[in-house]
Amino acid sequence: MDVVLLGSGNVATHLGLALAKGGHRIVQVYSRTLGNASLLANQFQAVAIDDITQLVAQADVFILAVNDDAIESVVGKLPLDIDGLVVHTSGTTAIDVLSPLGRYGVFYPLQTFSKSKEVDFRAIPIALESHHEDDMAVLESLAHSISDVVFHCDSAQRLTLHIAAVFACNFTNHLFAVAADLLQHNGLSFDLVKPLVMETAEKILTLDPAEAQTGPAVRDDRKTMEKHLSILREHPNWQHLYQLLSADIQRNKY
Amino acid sequence: MDVVLLGSGNVATHLGLALAKGGHRIVQVYSRTLGNASLLANQFQAVAIDDITQLVAQADVFILAVNDDAIESVVGKLPLDIDGLVVHTSGTTAIDVLSPLGRYGVFYPLQTFSKSKEVDFRAIPIALESHHEDDMAVLESLAHSISDVVFHCDSAQRLTLHIAAVFACNFTNHLFAVAADLLQHNGLSFDLVKPLVMETAEKILTLDPAEAQTGPAVRDDRKTMEKHLSILREHPNWQHLYQLLSADIQRNKY
Repeated sequence: MDVVLLGSGNVATHLGLALAKGGHRIVQVYSRTLGNASLLANQFQAVAIDDITQLVAQADVFILAVNDDAIESVVGKLPLDIDGLVVHTSGTTAIDVLSPLGRYGVFYPLQTFSKSKEVDFRAIPIALESHHEDDMAVLESLAHSISDVVFHCDSAQRLTLHIAAVFACNFTNHLFAVAADLLQHNGLSFDLVKPLVMETAEKILTLDPAEAQTGPAVRDDRKTMEKHLSILREHPNWQHLYQLLSADIQRNKY
Repeated sequence: MDVVLLGSGNVATHLGLALAKGGHRIVQVYSRTLGNASLLANQFQAVAIDDITQLVAQADVFILAVNDDAIESVVGKLPLDIDGLVVHTSGTTAIDVLSPLGRYGVFYPLQTFSKSKEVDFRAIPIALESHHEDDMAVLESLAHSISDVVFHCDSAQRLTLHIAAVFACNFTNHLFAVAADLLQHNGLSFDLVKPLVMETAEKILTLDPAEAQTGPAVRDDRKTMEKHLSILREHPNWQHLYQLLSADIQRNKY
């Protein structure tokens, strides 16, 4: 398919590379900053533009991979005679934001993208939604060409998926940061807990997380919890976090 | 070396198997329940006992792998003429609990053990502490025979290590459980976030967690955070957790 990318950040970059590898043609890359558009466009021999009125009218799919906050304003500037399917890539934005357009949908890859780290796109789940039923076949074909895990979900489900990802990924990473800080301030290397982090992640590939729960809270080992809280007295936020997480583990009574 | 195991739970089992594989001889297994002692002892052709006065007096190392709460009472019952090094395996218990004995120390493997899941002991960090300096060589030799990551740490550092493990492992797993619950109640499979969980864990093998932080909180994307909080209104605990974790991410201002 002929694809136009609107955006030049992490999602646009990783998605563009995966689509090009999947045999599609990236024809244009739009960014507000021409330099950024060019950097990405040069990877595909695509045309870089910073003026949205210069969009080609005909492409199979236009992918809006801009910040969530910018979607609405970019949609407002799109030429309404666009003859192609326009999709956004946002977990938190309802499909309706694209309703001024004729054919539209959502193409949401559920992954955390960093500029410096390559990802295996075939393992990344892609959530699809389309306004016209006919267009779903186009999205499915595009998604299957780069990923093995393609599924339909509506805007409300996609938002749940996004919150779940915040808990399982962003908040989890913050707990790693807390652990790293505690260790480093006591002359210990964060490397020491890395095998534990990998084991914890690998466990839930085969076990339900509720079944895999270990530690003082689920054992109701109050003596240990008290020791921990006393050590954390210099960090009231983490003490509070410790109490809340422990209480929630106990409330769920595995 | 000749090793006696006191305890028959997950730590005793995994440690015993690793030591036997490392060429040591497990001579006795003690448990309050003879059936449990036998189950484990049979794996090593060791003698199972449930009467602590029947302990062999001579072994190189006696490993106390019982619940933290039980250590003190087991120490109280140990024959004081024991001629060998006695170590406990607890992250949260100071070395002093063993002070009624002659030669003592700590042998703390930093990992989460489940009965059903084998672990690669060579990658598990083992923290050592000994009362007499001479005995450190014995502990080092024993630890190096089963693990590639052996280090010294005192009782205060070991407690910090244990808290860090609770944040990086137990609390992290609970966040996975929250994500699984949210997904399942919205008709979505937890499988969908598993690639994200693995990517999040793998990232911190090479990146500092503070650098790896992504998501709405670190971007200060208030619109998304408000949407998430509104979705979580039926779960006041998780709403509270969301606010606390987001505020802490922002407080640390990566």
